[in-house]
Amino acid sequence: MARIAVVAGDGIGPEVVAEARKVIDAAVPGVEATEYDLGAARYHRTGEVLPDSVLTELAGHDAILLGAVGDPTVPPGVLERGLLLKLRFAFDQYVNLRPSRLWPGVASPLATVKSGEVDLVVVREGTEGLYAGAGGALHRGTPAEIATEESLNTRHGVERVVRDAFARARRRERRKVTLVHKTNVLTHAGSLWARTFEAVAAEHPDVATEYQHVDAAAMFLVTQPQRYDVVVTDNLFGDILTDIAAAVTGGIGLAASGSINPDGTYPSMFEPVHGSAPDIAGRGVADPVAAVLSGALLLDQLGHADAAARITAAVSAELAGRGPEVTLRTAEVGDRIAAQVAA
Amino acid sequence: MARIAVVAGDGIGPEVVAEARKVIDAAVPGVEATEYDLGAARYHRTGEVLPDSVLTELAGHDAILLGAVGDPTVPPGVLERGLLLKLRFAFDQYVNLRPSRLWPGVASPLATVKSGEVDLVVVREGTEGLYAGAGGALHRGTPAEIATEESLNTRHGVERVVRDAFARARRRERRKVTLVHKTNVLTHAGSLWARTFEAVAAEHPDVATEYQHVDAAAMFLVTQPQRYDVVVTDNLFGDILTDIAAAVTGGIGLAASGSINPDGTYPSMFEPVHGSAPDIAGRGVADPVAAVLSGALLLDQLGHADAAARITAAVSAELAGRGPEVTLRTAEVGDRIAAQVAA
Ligand SMILES: CC(C)[C@H](C(=O)O)[C@@H](O)C(=O)O
Ligand SMILES: CC(C)[C@H](C(=O)O)[C@@H](O)C(=O)O
Repeated sequence: MARIAVVAGDGIGPEVVAEARKVIDAAVPGVEATEYDLGAARYHRTGEVLPDSVLTELAGHDAILLGAVGDPTVPPGVLERGLLLKLRFAFDQYVNLRPSRLWPGVASPLATVKSGEVDLVVVREGTEGLYAGAGGALHRGTPAEIATEESLNTRHGVERVVRDAFARARRRERRKVTLVHKTNVLTHAGSLWARTFEAVAAEHPDVATEYQHVDAAAMFLVTQPQRYDVVVTDNLFGDILTDIAAAVTGGIGLAASGSINPDGTYPSMFEPVHGSAPDIAGRGVADPVAAVLSGALLLDQLGHADAAARITAAVSAELAGRGPEVTLRTAEVGDRIAAQVAA
Repeated sequence: MARIAVVAGDGIGPEVVAEARKVIDAAVPGVEATEYDLGAARYHRTGEVLPDSVLTELAGHDAILLGAVGDPTVPPGVLERGLLLKLRFAFDQYVNLRPSRLWPGVASPLATVKSGEVDLVVVREGTEGLYAGAGGALHRGTPAEIATEESLNTRHGVERVVRDAFARARRRERRKVTLVHKTNVLTHAGSLWARTFEAVAAEHPDVATEYQHVDAAAMFLVTQPQRYDVVVTDNLFGDILTDIAAAVTGGIGLAASGSINPDGTYPSMFEPVHGSAPDIAGRGVADPVAAVLSGALLLDQLGHADAAARITAAVSAELAGRGPEVTLRTAEVGDRIAAQVAA
């Protein structure tokens, strides 16, 4: 039976993770879960972000379910670089998967887009680019200060994520992949991405392709999100585009993500796109849907495609039944979805 | 009398620039204009992108009005790096100014946003960051290829554009500046931007401030564009955010921009955010409003604030009078706006 590590984290993290676990248990009884206490709370208590011993223990699991980490009192970068990105890089989670669907019953902020019309997935590179942590500063705090950030891109890293995007497109109805980059300005990395994309595309004549600059893609995600099927892009562009995609499909409260190591050498990690939302934490009003859908991605990755599909269907029913101005109770949402999944 | 250089460029560039000039002439009679033939057409004909002699001549003008350059047959980067960015960098145009207003009569794709509710300006840094052209590749075309792009940021460069943003905020009603960056991942550059922003903010106690990560800002531009007044950000983030801002306020057909050297050492350059749109070029159906508004920014920069305000008012009247599905004729739009400005 699968063994998962659970990092509930801070703020609303524990609240939404509890519901995700409820639903996972209903879908696949017997998944073994071990909780790990990581995040802002632990950092404040002990100064530790991710002890090596914990990293080793996490590596021994089949997957990781993460809620949200962080609070405004932790300096920027400490938990992001020391925990989230550390895990993505240490576990070679090179596919950062972010599906966006406009679910029946969910209103898009876009006037012209109707339920069911948007169904896209962004395959964001997860282990390279500007997230590599290559950069520095000189003369810090003086008028002569310079600060650099370097985007590192390898053929190895680009090709494997592009291949993953094409493989996913083949399993979808529209079979289309859009490459997003900024080849006209970032000419070196852009050329590597474009050439790699063309080479992989040539092996997939059954998949339609297009290229867009990141600024144009950001615009089209607002004006015509329907046009996208699979989008493959670099780490930073993916970060930005997936928040836009979430916004046009009802908000990050519904957006799930997986940081996936497709080779299975290391555990993949699944988490809602939203953060710890300290403003609403502890009140039981956070929407657990993003965490629940992240749980579905987790089960899918572990080979439980049927269970994942049942969760997705239950979420769809839950959202279709919501009124536009509903006040939700986190636990009730989880209960309803779990009941539906078990039924 | 002011002397401007006009680079009409390719595709719809000449069509929309003709209307912008009509309107400029109506607003400030006697502006002297010299045309320069640059862009894809010249590149194809002569192989030249921006001869040094032309750069020197351009430098002798009070401002530059640019239409659009490029066509799909020019390799990516050639005209962008060789012409557009070359001018921004050579003329130290460190303030890339991009106002977004939801004009009366213009429908936003956002269901919840009403005419008049969005009025923001993005102050995008124009001479640093990932646009510096620092990067390279090794083992190109082999499995061992690496490609890098470097973001270069200086206290000098950041401080001057942040100061400009605060100065602009002081001249606006809401007096608010939002810094957008990604301080939690790009910790070196992010820290420089954040510290500089705080230092300048401390000198402007009458200006409200906030900070947002770029992914959050991309989302909020879709869900609550009303919340922004002045946004200051780096070169690449500004590129992406301004296309989103344009999208939510009726599209890049209406979006003007200025690449400004506030010191006046070099000419500033004004251009629509849209490209050369080869698909509709030559048919006289391109909307010249973005070019006309760029002309207004140009006149404002040259000290003709009244003329600029008259153009803006005329554009507002033009847009308010348009039906939702109007088929426009480029020249007729220009004629109407020019007539209104002259009246
Ligand atoms: C918290 C941050 C490091 C992270 C990222 O930038 O990847 C987040 O925005 C995300 O999208 O998962
Ligand atoms: C054409 C390109 C170089 C340019 C940019 O990226 O700055 C454009 O997108 C813009 O926004 O003016």
